[in-house]
Amino acid sequence: MVDGVRHRFYLHLFPSARTKPGLSVVNRIICGLIVYSVVIAILESEPAVLREGRGFFLVSEYLLTFLFAAEYLARLWCAPEDPRFRQPVWGRLRYAVTPAALMDLLAISPLLFTLLGSEAFLFRLFRLFRILRLAKLGRYSEAIAEIFTAVRSRRYELLGSMACALFLLLISSTFLYLVESEAQPEAFGSIPRAMWWSVATLTTVGYGDVVPVTTLGRFFGGITAIIGIGLIAMPTGILAAAFSDALARRREGKGGAAEE
Amino acid sequence: MVDGVRHRFYLHLFPSARTKPGLSVVNRIICGLIVYSVVIAILESEPAVLREGRGFFLVSEYLLTFLFAAEYLARLWCAPEDPRFRQPVWGRLRYAVTPAALMDLLAISPLLFTLLGSEAFLFRLFRLFRILRLAKLGRYSEAIAEIFTAVRSRRYELLGSMACALFLLLISSTFLYLVESEAQPEAFGSIPRAMWWSVATLTTVGYGDVVPVTTLGRFFGGITAIIGIGLIAMPTGILAAAFSDALARRREGKGGAAEE
Amino acid sequence: MVDGVRHRFYLHLFPSARTKPGLSVVNRIICGLIVYSVVIAILESEPAVLREGRGFFLVSEYLLTFLFAAEYLARLWCAPEDPRFRQPVWGRLRYAVTPAALMDLLAISPLLFTLLGSEAFLFRLFRLFRILRLAKLGRYSEAIAEIFTAVRSRRYELLGSMACALFLLLISSTFLYLVESEAQPEAFGSIPRAMWWSVATLTTVGYGDVVPVTTLGRFFGGITAIIGIGLIAMPTGILAAAFSDALARRREGKGGAAEE
Amino acid sequence: MVDGVRHRFYLHLFPSARTKPGLSVVNRIICGLIVYSVVIAILESEPAVLREGRGFFLVSEYLLTFLFAAEYLARLWCAPEDPRFRQPVWGRLRYAVTPAALMDLLAISPLLFTLLGSEAFLFRLFRLFRILRLAKLGRYSEAIAEIFTAVRSRRYELLGSMACALFLLLISSTFLYLVESEAQPEAFGSIPRAMWWSVATLTTVGYGDVVPVTTLGRFFGGITAIIGIGLIAMPTGILAAAFSDALARRREGKGGAAEE
Repeated sequence: MVDGVRHRFYLHLFPSARTKPGLSVVNRIICGLIVYSVVIAILESEPAVLREGRGFFLVSEYLLTFLFAAEYLARLWCAPEDPRFRQPVWGRLRYAVTPAALMDLLAISPLLFTLLGSEAFLFRLFRLFRILRLAKLGRYSEAIAEIFTAVRSRRYELLGSMACALFLLLISSTFLYLVESEAQPEAFGSIPRAMWWSVATLTTVGYGDVVPVTTLGRFFGGITAIIGIGLIAMPTGILAAAFSDALARRREGKGGAAEE
Repeated sequence: MVDGVRHRFYLHLFPSARTKPGLSVVNRIICGLIVYSVVIAILESEPAVLREGRGFFLVSEYLLTFLFAAEYLARLWCAPEDPRFRQPVWGRLRYAVTPAALMDLLAISPLLFTLLGSEAFLFRLFRLFRILRLAKLGRYSEAIAEIFTAVRSRRYELLGSMACALFLLLISSTFLYLVESEAQPEAFGSIPRAMWWSVATLTTVGYGDVVPVTTLGRFFGGITAIIGIGLIAMPTGILAAAFSDALARRREGKGGAAEE
Repeated sequence: MVDGVRHRFYLHLFPSARTKPGLSVVNRIICGLIVYSVVIAILESEPAVLREGRGFFLVSEYLLTFLFAAEYLARLWCAPEDPRFRQPVWGRLRYAVTPAALMDLLAISPLLFTLLGSEAFLFRLFRLFRILRLAKLGRYSEAIAEIFTAVRSRRYELLGSMACALFLLLISSTFLYLVESEAQPEAFGSIPRAMWWSVATLTTVGYGDVVPVTTLGRFFGGITAIIGIGLIAMPTGILAAAFSDALARRREGKGGAAEE
Repeated sequence: MVDGVRHRFYLHLFPSARTKPGLSVVNRIICGLIVYSVVIAILESEPAVLREGRGFFLVSEYLLTFLFAAEYLARLWCAPEDPRFRQPVWGRLRYAVTPAALMDLLAISPLLFTLLGSEAFLFRLFRLFRILRLAKLGRYSEAIAEIFTAVRSRRYELLGSMACALFLLLISSTFLYLVESEAQPEAFGSIPRAMWWSVATLTTVGYGDVVPVTTLGRFFGGITAIIGIGLIAMPTGILAAAFSDALARRREGKGGAAEE
């Protein structure tokens, strides 16, 4: 009878064991707890917030660690239900060293580090990766997989356009260094310094903390900004073509079955 | 004979009753009044303008409220012409609680609130939504519908790329927080604070009010800016593919009838 | 024999009379003069440059006016060669009131205005439009025509997405006005004022001269910046699809003859 | 026997002699040395870094010059293995004046210039171009060639959209000059000065060092920013269509062989 309970636990805890699409209720709750734990970790980094709610954050962390520990033990207990980890001891040990299980163990550790006096509270952000492990989120993970496929199919073009970008970055930094280094030694006094401006301009971010002031510097600056448009247009065009291609293949293959 | 008048009113007031394409003259005037009323509300928020033309704004608002009230009563009177609201009393009551009629009623309320001393003049902006109710603007609403269809058909990909974006936002904020928090505690003293910079950089807005100053901070900042290009390229590429797909289907289906 | 000279002049001056592709040598020189004249006008607006080279600019302008006047008279003389302006007097008068001829006349006027003491030197920029009249620049005008066709075929979608943009602009301005007007009455004290920030953010320009400072303002500001990506992605995607569609039609129609 | 050694050297040094895909080990090392030399040159431009490691930089430069000189001599020695440079003396001389060999010679010169007291250390950046000569980097150079083909096939459209952009730049600069020159003579006192702002806005870089302050200036500024989106959308759409077209041709031609 214990085996029946264990099997039911197993079905609820292990996404790979689930036959129906989507996540089980238990895993949905765990996903919610992970998001909650990450939000808490983010907010806690703000001193003003931490001062107000130190107690709340501490209780939250204790509770979350307890729940994640319970989840970890439950998974360990259920592991032999998986055909790959059949033996009670050896199987569980082999399960415990899988990346997924180690990630689960890592999720419990932050409190431990904090109790030991270390400032390791950022470890909690790693919990976010556990969502990816659980995330058989149906259509969403399919969509993300599709995006990755499209990006991967064009990886050489994307890397090639990135190489062009690096080349342009180097050239525009050198130009601005040559032209502006006398007028603004602080901002353009060396090529690495000029790169900060170049990156901001080529990506069209344009902070404006560093800006060419000489006529020649502004001329090259303007050209850099215009080239920056090409730098955005290139990967966008490549990705658009990759997505279009994927849709066109689907259209041809399945005969208009792309929407469903 | 009254019924004949009411039927004519009905035909002019209810877009759904119109057989010809486009808007009736009456509804065009109402659209114009709505736009006028919204422009007035926007301008009135500027103290310098309000001081100059307080009388003009007050008269405008009285007049607009009067006209919208007249329109509301006219619609209520004509409602039984619609087969769904056939009964004189019960039908009109049922019409009065439809979202469209409630929206019309809401359009009359701002003056009331103002008279009661409340600062609710922003309610007037809600009148803009009434244009959507009237807007059987032919080709334009068709085009907007097409855009929405394309966006909806790729909603999983768009949401997936937004999830990636949020993930990157969190990572880059954390990095900058770790690297810059000592040098600039005001701007990067916590992850939520660093997020303001991260959003501005990843979207390539780049205000420049907050900027990394350490070498390592600028290094990660530059990488964030370059990733920001990918963040723009992703949804653009997905949408471009969706629009291309829609056009290709049309081309295949209707045999080059896409333009008309 | 004069008629033979006139006919040769006609062939050189009127792009419509040319049978070979490209521009005649005379018209190329005129294009060069127009560009030169516009560059002069731009540079002359800079006081520092004007002070140095007042004599040079004056001589240039006299010379250009003389050449453009000679061109105008030559065209007037040759006009009857065109079948539409056959009669010596009446035909030339009818030619003189065509938009193209009036534009040519306008190109001579700036010096006149300057001599009369008026500050009308910016009229000279209008000369640029004359290039469009001459511009049978072969592949380039074809390419521009193709771009215009693609833009026009999707004009409803583009205007629809612009309507969405205006709507978002209004909403984000209102939000920021409500949230930031107390903290920064100068920059966010009214909806029209907040619009300056909103436009800069939604278009991802992000000057940074005006920036939200409250937590809530930054939250809405961040969302506005993210929506701004959509605002760029929408028209880009629509245009990409339009260009793809045009290429696909060509490919299908001419069987892979798109490149030549 | 010397000839056998020379032939083996030839096979390792000349990318054109290689039958297998990818780069030979020797050329990979040379590529690495070039990258190392460029990184050194970039870092050395920073005074703070140079002060710390003057000795290291000097030794690096001596070593690199020695290695590149050895490479140059080795290539010169092997040149007659190439059928085009068969004769021992005349063939080597003809090889020495090929652009590739001159570029190799240029790579040795910077140290010479430095020893002669000149500040020509930036010559070292030219070494980067030598990578292009070696770069038979397989898939990457194929991908870059594909990008160039796509850009070239649409060059008229891209140049046409750039002409539109220049036209808009001129118009918006003139408008802002007319509207803002009185309020901000330093930043908008002439059309060339206003162009700096215009470029930053149309490319959506938006430094914010120069910003319109009058109401009318902000109105035109906002319109310029919105037009800037079109300026980004245009080339992106054109490129996306070009890449899509290339993929569609491949799909049709090879029957779904696009991925491999």
